[in-house]
Amino acid sequence: MQKVYIAGIGQTPVQEHWDRSARDLAATSILEAVEEAEIDKIDALYVGNALSGELTGQEQVAALIADFAGLTGTEAIRVEAAGASGGAAVRLGYLAVASGVHDAVIVTGVEKMSDLAGPLVEQALVTSSDEEYEAIHGLSLVALHAFLMRRYMHDYDLGRGDFGHFSVNAHRNAANNPFAMFRRPITLDQFQKARLVADPISLLDSAPVADGAATVVLCSKKVAGEGAESSVEIIGSASATDAVALHDRPDPLFLRAVYDSAHKAYAQAGVGAEQIGIFELHDAFTILAALSLEASGFAEEGQGVRLAMQGEITLEGSIPICTMGGLKGRGYPVGAAGVYQVVELVQQLRGEAGANQVDARLGMAQSIGGTGATAVTHILKSPD
Amino acid sequence: MQKVYIAGIGQTPVQEHWDRSARDLAATSILEAVEEAEIDKIDALYVGNALSGELTGQEQVAALIADFAGLTGTEAIRVEAAGASGGAAVRLGYLAVASGVHDAVIVTGVEKMSDLAGPLVEQALVTSSDEEYEAIHGLSLVALHAFLMRRYMHDYDLGRGDFGHFSVNAHRNAANNPFAMFRRPITLDQFQKARLVADPISLLDSAPVADGAATVVLCSKKVAGEGAESSVEIIGSASATDAVALHDRPDPLFLRAVYDSAHKAYAQAGVGAEQIGIFELHDAFTILAALSLEASGFAEEGQGVRLAMQGEITLEGSIPICTMGGLKGRGYPVGAAGVYQVVELVQQLRGEAGANQVDARLGMAQSIGGTGATAVTHILKSPD
Repeated sequence: MQKVYIAGIGQTPVQEHWDRSARDLAATSILEAVEEAEIDKIDALYVGNALSGELTGQEQVAALIADFAGLTGTEAIRVEAAGASGGAAVRLGYLAVASGVHDAVIVTGVEKMSDLAGPLVEQALVTSSDEEYEAIHGLSLVALHAFLMRRYMHDYDLGRGDFGHFSVNAHRNAANNPFAMFRRPITLDQFQKARLVADPISLLDSAPVADGAATVVLCSKKVAGEGAESSVEIIGSASATDAVALHDRPDPLFLRAVYDSAHKAYAQAGVGAEQIGIFELHDAFTILAALSLEASGFAEEGQGVRLAMQGEITLEGSIPICTMGGLKGRGYPVGAAGVYQVVELVQQLRGEAGANQVDARLGMAQSIGGTGATAVTHILKSPD
Repeated sequence: MQKVYIAGIGQTPVQEHWDRSARDLAATSILEAVEEAEIDKIDALYVGNALSGELTGQEQVAALIADFAGLTGTEAIRVEAAGASGGAAVRLGYLAVASGVHDAVIVTGVEKMSDLAGPLVEQALVTSSDEEYEAIHGLSLVALHAFLMRRYMHDYDLGRGDFGHFSVNAHRNAANNPFAMFRRPITLDQFQKARLVADPISLLDSAPVADGAATVVLCSKKVAGEGAESSVEIIGSASATDAVALHDRPDPLFLRAVYDSAHKAYAQAGVGAEQIGIFELHDAFTILAALSLEASGFAEEGQGVRLAMQGEITLEGSIPICTMGGLKGRGYPVGAAGVYQVVELVQQLRGEAGANQVDARLGMAQSIGGTGATAVTHILKSPD
């Protein structure tokens, strides 16, 4: 297997891009990443996208984006794993380079969500649940997470407001990220008073869907040359799944796919959770942040929220999460989120994170589909 | 890079499965393939599926199928490239094993199309075209291919009926395939009289959409052990793209993605078109069959239809195509088709093709998305 390096990154601001289409956003992030990478020959493009068919009537987006980005002819394949689509695309790019089949590939995550009315977006989002056993009963994706949060509050004697520490951290970090959707801090008091979406989940527990595209250029040592020494390296890459329907999981508060993918990635990288300095996790809802911390080995069962309450998830804490705003603060263009996470980790590991800079040698990015049926985890190492 | 072998195959009949869902069809083909492969440990599942979101409101199908097939927990990722989704999934499985990351993976193609009314299926199918420049004008996927066929007839002085040789061959071969949708031969006279869908394309130029699932188990030599000697091997794997919109291609009758993917696969396998003994091509429409033969090097420009007229594409000809019925005769469950092609090639190369057996050492399978924007080509070698 070849070592895999990240030679370039690119991203568009996450917002409601009323004047731009998915292909346009994707191409912008690709051109930026390719310019930085300074690689002449790109072998393939892998696109993470969750909902282009439902939201814009466009499938085969990988070929479309390749053409629009000036890569006509190249191998171009789209991967989909709901909210984990971006992570899955990075995984595919990793496989293509690690195999030696390719030496330089582009991984782009993109989602264009603003063109549809809210209820139609909600209808699209719930396709990540089990259609025949969950969505068919009228359950929304928020409602499914509300079940999880309610059960967690009951089991561990917590109030709704205790989850606010996740959102306060995310918004605080987003304030310094020029690509973030929400650049204003929020307070615990605001969190407490936020409008409920599906009790106990409020607007401020929920990451906002939006438009955006992010890109990383992956390459082998052969292509990176001496630049490899100054490049971030992917030292762990793993993906795992769980039952899609919540009722099919023996313990719905245990994210088995997260546990499996994180621990497979640790094993490959030869490290443990205690060596990870930054964790870009999938905070589509605050409850997912808590459960991800637990299943990934940063907190004991039932202690994820308490870790946040103790301030350990902030930039100054023992395991900073969502350092550039996370899904909650940066915004959540669904299929793009997993690539944004990797882009932000690279910024951190290169020391380019500005006011949010964390001193870390290893970072982890984790992308989740639906209520946890798919999880993809990558561990990145800073240049030596 | 590790060598990649095909250790097991499975398929459901292609038909309107009113009583079965996508996950059920997929699991059936998986269990069959895994039983044949006799491999204890499966590392991942890659699913080719084009339209599950549009047709059944279900995304994240890879995790769903993994769970339903008894593979809960495994890596499971879906790839989409419109009609080339099945081929793209085989490509991903190939990368995963060739890289040494995995030693045994399952590749499944599945599509469930019967539950929606015809116009809605047509609306789903056209998502493979360029939504902003083609579909938005009301063009259907058939209409786009009608442009190609009409232009071809004009340039090369051919009649509509001349294309009938493709369909007659496909139906003749499907008659002996117990998994095929249409098990009755047709005549050139019937072809001539068939009802037009979008002039000059008739019902008998067009492959029927349907339900079905097909699976191959790919493994490394380490897992195959001595069985490698009696297994079909993948010796070429390549994918390429072209502009999605027809008007963006300098010559719409030249399938550039097909040319590129075929010739990259030839280069990897160290062979030329003249050494390929069977060609499972993507005959969604007869015009695509003609253009694929040309771009893949089996016929000169404008000679694809004449090759068929001369009988060279039949089981007794110089380059048998669609030997088990092709998309036209076996049926076309969109995202599954590319895997069906590989399954059928394995049957041929193992000598298990019954009445349709062709004597060949090398076979090629080629999967196309839309009017040719994505093409994935695999070259398989029979056991020595």
